[in-house]
Amino acid sequence: MDPCFSFTRKQEENEDIDSMPSNKKGLLERLAEGVVIGDGGMIWAMELKGYAEAGKYTPEAAVEHPEAVLQMHREFVHNGAEVLQTCTFWSSKLEEETVEGVSVNDAACALALKAAKEASDPILVAGSVTKTDLYEQGESKEVVQAEFRRQLDFYVRNDFDFVIAEFFDHVLEAEWAVEVLKESGKPVLATVCIGPEGDADSFSPEQCALRLARAGADVVGVNCRFGPQTCLKTVAMMKRALKLAKLDHVYLAVQPYGYHTPDAPINGYSGMKEFPFAMDARVMTRIDAYNYAKEASKLGVRYIGGCCGFEGRHIRSMSEALQGKTGRIAPVTKRYGKWINTYADKDDERADAKHWLEMKPATGRPKSSAMSESVKYS
Amino acid sequence: MDPCFSFTRKQEENEDIDSMPSNKKGLLERLAEGVVIGDGGMIWAMELKGYAEAGKYTPEAAVEHPEAVLQMHREFVHNGAEVLQTCTFWSSKLEEETVEGVSVNDAACALALKAAKEASDPILVAGSVTKTDLYEQGESKEVVQAEFRRQLDFYVRNDFDFVIAEFFDHVLEAEWAVEVLKESGKPVLATVCIGPEGDADSFSPEQCALRLARAGADVVGVNCRFGPQTCLKTVAMMKRALKLAKLDHVYLAVQPYGYHTPDAPINGYSGMKEFPFAMDARVMTRIDAYNYAKEASKLGVRYIGGCCGFEGRHIRSMSEALQGKTGRIAPVTKRYGKWINTYADKDDERADAKHWLEMKPATGRPKSSAMSESVKYS
Amino acid sequence: MDPCFSFTRKQEENEDIDSMPSNKKGLLERLAEGVVIGDGGMIWAMELKGYAEAGKYTPEAAVEHPEAVLQMHREFVHNGAEVLQTCTFWSSKLEEETVEGVSVNDAACALALKAAKEASDPILVAGSVTKTDLYEQGESKEVVQAEFRRQLDFYVRNDFDFVIAEFFDHVLEAEWAVEVLKESGKPVLATVCIGPEGDADSFSPEQCALRLARAGADVVGVNCRFGPQTCLKTVAMMKRALKLAKLDHVYLAVQPYGYHTPDAPINGYSGMKEFPFAMDARVMTRIDAYNYAKEASKLGVRYIGGCCGFEGRHIRSMSEALQGKTGRIAPVTKRYGKWINTYADKDDERADAKHWLEMKPATGRPKSSAMSESVKYS
Amino acid sequence: MDPCFSFTRKQEENEDIDSMPSNKKGLLERLAEGVVIGDGGMIWAMELKGYAEAGKYTPEAAVEHPEAVLQMHREFVHNGAEVLQTCTFWSSKLEEETVEGVSVNDAACALALKAAKEASDPILVAGSVTKTDLYEQGESKEVVQAEFRRQLDFYVRNDFDFVIAEFFDHVLEAEWAVEVLKESGKPVLATVCIGPEGDADSFSPEQCALRLARAGADVVGVNCRFGPQTCLKTVAMMKRALKLAKLDHVYLAVQPYGYHTPDAPINGYSGMKEFPFAMDARVMTRIDAYNYAKEASKLGVRYIGGCCGFEGRHIRSMSEALQGKTGRIAPVTKRYGKWINTYADKDDERADAKHWLEMKPATGRPKSSAMSESVKYS
Repeated sequence: MDPCFSFTRKQEENEDIDSMPSNKKGLLERLAEGVVIGDGGMIWAMELKGYAEAGKYTPEAAVEHPEAVLQMHREFVHNGAEVLQTCTFWSSKLEEETVEGVSVNDAACALALKAAKEASDPILVAGSVTKTDLYEQGESKEVVQAEFRRQLDFYVRNDFDFVIAEFFDHVLEAEWAVEVLKESGKPVLATVCIGPEGDADSFSPEQCALRLARAGADVVGVNCRFGPQTCLKTVAMMKRALKLAKLDHVYLAVQPYGYHTPDAPINGYSGMKEFPFAMDARVMTRIDAYNYAKEASKLGVRYIGGCCGFEGRHIRSMSEALQGKTGRIAPVTKRYGKWINTYADKDDERADAKHWLEMKPATGRPKSSAMSESVKYS
Repeated sequence: MDPCFSFTRKQEENEDIDSMPSNKKGLLERLAEGVVIGDGGMIWAMELKGYAEAGKYTPEAAVEHPEAVLQMHREFVHNGAEVLQTCTFWSSKLEEETVEGVSVNDAACALALKAAKEASDPILVAGSVTKTDLYEQGESKEVVQAEFRRQLDFYVRNDFDFVIAEFFDHVLEAEWAVEVLKESGKPVLATVCIGPEGDADSFSPEQCALRLARAGADVVGVNCRFGPQTCLKTVAMMKRALKLAKLDHVYLAVQPYGYHTPDAPINGYSGMKEFPFAMDARVMTRIDAYNYAKEASKLGVRYIGGCCGFEGRHIRSMSEALQGKTGRIAPVTKRYGKWINTYADKDDERADAKHWLEMKPATGRPKSSAMSESVKYS
Repeated sequence: MDPCFSFTRKQEENEDIDSMPSNKKGLLERLAEGVVIGDGGMIWAMELKGYAEAGKYTPEAAVEHPEAVLQMHREFVHNGAEVLQTCTFWSSKLEEETVEGVSVNDAACALALKAAKEASDPILVAGSVTKTDLYEQGESKEVVQAEFRRQLDFYVRNDFDFVIAEFFDHVLEAEWAVEVLKESGKPVLATVCIGPEGDADSFSPEQCALRLARAGADVVGVNCRFGPQTCLKTVAMMKRALKLAKLDHVYLAVQPYGYHTPDAPINGYSGMKEFPFAMDARVMTRIDAYNYAKEASKLGVRYIGGCCGFEGRHIRSMSEALQGKTGRIAPVTKRYGKWINTYADKDDERADAKHWLEMKPATGRPKSSAMSESVKYS
Repeated sequence: MDPCFSFTRKQEENEDIDSMPSNKKGLLERLAEGVVIGDGGMIWAMELKGYAEAGKYTPEAAVEHPEAVLQMHREFVHNGAEVLQTCTFWSSKLEEETVEGVSVNDAACALALKAAKEASDPILVAGSVTKTDLYEQGESKEVVQAEFRRQLDFYVRNDFDFVIAEFFDHVLEAEWAVEVLKESGKPVLATVCIGPEGDADSFSPEQCALRLARAGADVVGVNCRFGPQTCLKTVAMMKRALKLAKLDHVYLAVQPYGYHTPDAPINGYSGMKEFPFAMDARVMTRIDAYNYAKEASKLGVRYIGGCCGFEGRHIRSMSEALQGKTGRIAPVTKRYGKWINTYADKDDERADAKHWLEMKPATGRPKSSAMSESVKYS
C-alpha cells in the first residue's frame, strides 16, 4: 500500500512525518546562510504529461494520478530542489475541492510530504495561496481573507515549513494574503506575477516590493508570467527599492516562467500567441538555467526557483551552478557529476564547458521568427 | 510491496502477466487494420530527469529509480501509446548488465510489463536490440549474432509481443540482427538510423529498406538521429523502393528524434553543436507532433512512434490526430478531450484550431540563428 | 561642358539658378500645409558605390566623382524628395576642405543646386552643419561657433532655402549650432542623433527637444544612428515634451538610419558589430519605408526624411504613402504609378497590396540571428 | 553636349570608340590567363532607382534616363568590373523597341560603350540575348532564331567584344541562341537560369552544361534566379559533367542573383513571396560577395559576375578578393585600399579582417523568419 496508488494511508503517512528528525533548518536559517534552490511548477508539468487541462489548470491529478504528482516531486528533489510546493494550484476552482470524495488539497499535501520524507536530505515543504476570483469580483477584504485563511488551514494542519503567496496580478490582493499567512507564524514568501511595467493596477515593481515587505513578508519577489531575463530585470528594480527604503533585510525570491518571453505584452504569457500549446521553442535549456541561477545569485537573490516549465534538468543546472552558495550537492550530481563535464572526448569541442556556456543554440526552425505579435481578441 | 520500489516481486508480477487475457491483438493484426501509435524514447527521458548520463545513455535507472522508469511508461500509455519498449537501451554497455546485483534487463522488462498490465487498453510490449560495438570492431557474423541472440533471450523469456532491431548505422549489421530476431517467431520491426543520404556505408534509404525487408523484417523504417521532417523524407524514399520491388506488403515504421534537425550533418544529431544539452529550442511542439503524425499516415506509414525527446504531449497529439486511423482513444483524451479544442474562449483567436495548426511559433531567442554549423573535431 | 564633369561653369550655373522662378514655397510654408518628404543620406550612398571611405566618410566625391553625387541627388528627386541636402558631411575633416585645389563645399553646393534646377517640381536645397571635433576637445563656445559660422557661410552665399544642424551627440553643442544658424535668417531644422535613452550627456529626448526649440529651431527631431522604429519612439517622447511645454508650434523632423537596429546600444550603430560593412540584412524594405512614413505622419511629424541607407526606392515609398499629405506626386509615380499596385496578375497573391503591407519578409539567412551582441573594445 | 543628356552624338561617340587602342585583350585571352570579374544586373538596379517597372523590367531608362544608366555602368567599372553588359534586357518587349522615336538598343549600346571608353583600364563590352516569348508560344526554330539574329545585329554593328545568351529557362532555346550567336564570330558565353533541380524541361544542370558546350558556347554556366550559394552548387554539377565528357576546355561562368534564396522553389525567386519588393533582407553583404568570389574561383569558375542585386560594393569585394587571380586592381581599390582593412582602430574588434570574414550578421528583424513559404497561386 502506497500513496502512489491510494490515499487511505494518509494518516499513517503523517504520523511517519511527525517522527522525522526536527533538526532540519528552516527557510529563514537557510536564506541567512546562502542560496535556497526552489522547485519548478507542478501544474504545468502535469498538463504536459496529460494529467491536467490547459486553461483550467486545476490539480485533480493529486487524486486521479498521485503517482505522477509524486514522481514529479521526486524529480525535483533528485535534481537538487530544497523545497517542494504542493500541487494545489487553483484547487479552489474544483467543485468542493474534492475528486471522487477525496480532498485534493489533502492528497496533494500528503504527496509533497511523502516525497520530502523519502529524500536523503532535509527538504522544506511549502503550501501556497494564490489570487482569488473573489478579489476580481470586488468582494470585501474580509471575504477575500477568509478564503485565504481557509486555504492556509491545510498547511497549518500539516505543519508545513513555510507558506507562499504567489501568482497575484494585484499587489493589493497579495498584501491581504500576506496578512493572513502571517497569522500562521510560519515564514512567508510573497511574489507578484508582474514584469518591469508593474502590476494590473500600475503599481511599479518598486512599489510592489515595498508593499509586500511592509505587509510582513519575509521574502518578496516575482513568479511566473515572464521568462528568466524579464523576471531578473523586475527583481533588480525591487532590490533597489528595498535598499533605498532600508528594507534590505527582506530576502528576494525569483521563480520565473521556464520559457523566454522577450516579446511578452504587459500581461506576460497570457497574451502570447504561442501560449499555452506552442511555447516549446522558447523553453529554457539547462544552460539558460545555469546562467539564470548565476545571475540571480549575483544580483543578491537568495530564493532561486522556477515556475511553469522548469523540470529536472533545469533544477539540476541551477543547483550545480550554485553549489558553492547552497552548500548542497544534488542527488543527481552525487551520482553523475556536473552535467557540464560529462559529455564528449577531449578532441570534441563539446568536451569544453565554454562550448556550452557561450552557446547560442540554433532553433532548427527556419520558418519561425524570434518574436511574435501578441494575441488579438475579437 | 511494489515494483515501484523493489524488484523482489518480479516473479510474481510475471505470473500475473501470464494470466492476462490473451485475446489482445498482435502487432501485425493491428498494422493490418490501421495505424499503431508507438511510444517515445525512454533513455533520453531518463537523462532529462537526471536518471541517466548523457553520452553513456545506459539504463541503470531500471534498477536505481524504477519508479521513474515505470512512471514514464505510464505517461506514454496515458497519452495513447499502444506499444511500450523496454528501457534497455545500451544495457550491454553496463558492467555485467547488473546494478547492485540486479539484472537491468530483467528489471526493465518487469517495468514495461507492469505498466502494460495496469493499462485499461491492451498494450503491446516490445524489446529491442541495437548496434553492437562488436560489429564496428570487425567481429564475425557469428560473434555479433551471438550477442543479439543473448539480448533477444530476455524478451523471449518474457514472452514479449514483438521485437525491434533499431539504432543501426550499418544496414548490414541490422540485417544480421533481423535474422536473429526472426528466430523468435515474433513479429520483427527493423529500422536504421539514417537520413536521406543513407547509412554509414553509403547504402541509400532505398537499399536499406530492401535489405531489411529481404532479411525478413515485417516492418521497416527509420528511427532517431534526425527530426520528423527528415525522417519522413527518408521513409518516403524507402516506400518508393519497396513498391517498385513489389515488397509493399512490408509495413513502414517511423520513430523520429523529437527535435528539428534541418541542418544536421550526415550523422544526424551526433554531429550537431547543440547535442545533447542545448537541443531544447528545437523540440517539437504538440502541433509539430500532430502534423507529423498526419503526414506519416498520409504517406502510408503504419507504425508511427517517436524516439528521444517524445514525451506525453507528443504521443497524445499523434493519438488525437490519428484517432480515425487507430480506432483508439487515448486515456488522456477520454478524460479531457482533444487538446486542440480545450483552450480559450470564443473571442480569443486561440479558441480556433486553425490558430494552432497553422502557427509558426516564435522562438523567443533573438540571439539564436535557425541553423548552426556542425561540430568541428580537433 | 557640364558640372557632371567639370566645375568651371559653377558661376554660370548659379546665374541660372538666380533666374529660377522665386515663387517656390519655402520650408515653413510647406510644413504649415502638410508633410515634407526629405532625401536620404549622401555620404553613405557614396561609400556603398566606392566614392567615399567607410569610417572617414568625407565628401571628396563632390570633386572627384561629381557625376556620382549629382546622379544620387537626381535619384532622390526622381523618387519624390522635396529637399536636397548637400554632400558636405564632414567636409571639415578634409585637409583645407579642397581636393585638387577645388573647394569640396563649393562643388557640393553646385551639384545640389544643379539637381534642384533640373527638377520639374520646385525642390528646396539645404545645407547642414554637424558636430565638430572642437567641442569634444573642450574648445570654448566662441571657437565652436566660429567653426559653425564658417560652414554656414557656404550656404548663405549660395542663398540656400534653409539650414540644418544635425548629427549631434551633445544637445549642448547642437544649441550652439542653432544659435549660429539663426543668424542666417533662414529656417532652421535641428536634430540630435540619439535614441530613447538620450544624448551623450544624459539629456533625455524630452530635454533635447525643449533645448533645441528654445534655442530657436523651427523644426526639431532626430536623425541617423538608430533605425526607423527607434527614431519614431524617440520623436514621440519629444512630441509629448513640446506639447506639455506649449511649444508645439515647433515642427517635428525625423531622418532615421535606413537599417533596423532593435539591438543597438546607447550609441546606436556605432557600437554594433555589423557596422558598417554588414548592415545589409537590416536594410529597410520599401514596405518598411511605407509603414515608417505612415507612422511618422500619424505621430504628427511633418518633416519625414531619411539618412544613411535610404535610397530611391525608400523615398518613393514614403512619397507614395503620404501623397495625400504632401499634395505632390513623385516623378517616378507619375511615370509608373504606385509600386504597390504594379506587380503580378490577379491570380497571384502578390497582386494584393495587403500581401506586401502585412508581410514579414524572410531573411534568407538561416545561420543569422535577429539580434547581436554589441562591439567589445579591447 | 553629352550622351548623359542626349543621344544625337551617338555616331560621333562610336567614331571615338573605333579609334580606341585595339590592343585590349579579348574575353578568351583573359579567361585563359585567370579570372574575369563581371558586372551586376542593370535592369534590377534601374528598378530600385525608379527608372524601370518591376514585373515588366524593360529598359526604357536607356532613353528616358541615360544619365542613370551611364552612372550605373560607371559604378561597376569603378568597383572593378572588367565587363559591361548593355542595358537591353527585354527590350524586345517594348513597342517597336523605341521610346520617343529613339532606339532603346542603340541608346543602351552607346551608354555601355561610353562608360567603357571613359575607363582607365580596358573594359569589355558585351551584348546579350535572352529568352523569347516566341519559344514558349511554340514558334519554330527558324522564327525564334530570326529573333535572336535581329537582337544580335545591334551588337555586331557596334563591334562588341563578345556576346551572351542568358536568362533561359529552357536549355533547348538557349542552344538555338548559341547557334545564332556563333555566327557573329565573337566569343559566346551562355547561361541558363536554373538551380540544382534543372531547367523547365527537367534537363539536369549536367545536361544543360553539355548541351550548351556542344552547341558551341565558349563559356557556360548559370545566371540569376537563385542566390550565390545555390548557383555555385549548380555550377559544381556542371563542372563535373564537363570534366567527365572531356569538355573542360569550356570555361565556367556564374552570375547569381544578389540575394540569398535557400528556400527558393524550383523556379527560383519567381515563386518567392518576397519577390520583388521585399527581398532586401536577403541581399548579399560585401562579405558574402567576397566569400562567393573566393569559392567560385576555388571551384574553377573563370567568369565571376553578378546579376540582379549586385551593386558597386559587391563588385568591389569580388575584385578585391580575387586581385591575385585577375591581375587587376579596381579603381576604387587604388583610391582607398581594400575595404576590409579600412575600418576602425586597433582596439576595436572591427579592425580585424577575421571579424568580417567570419561574421554571421544579425538581421535586425526579430519578427522575420529565415525562410518562407512559396507563393500560392489562386
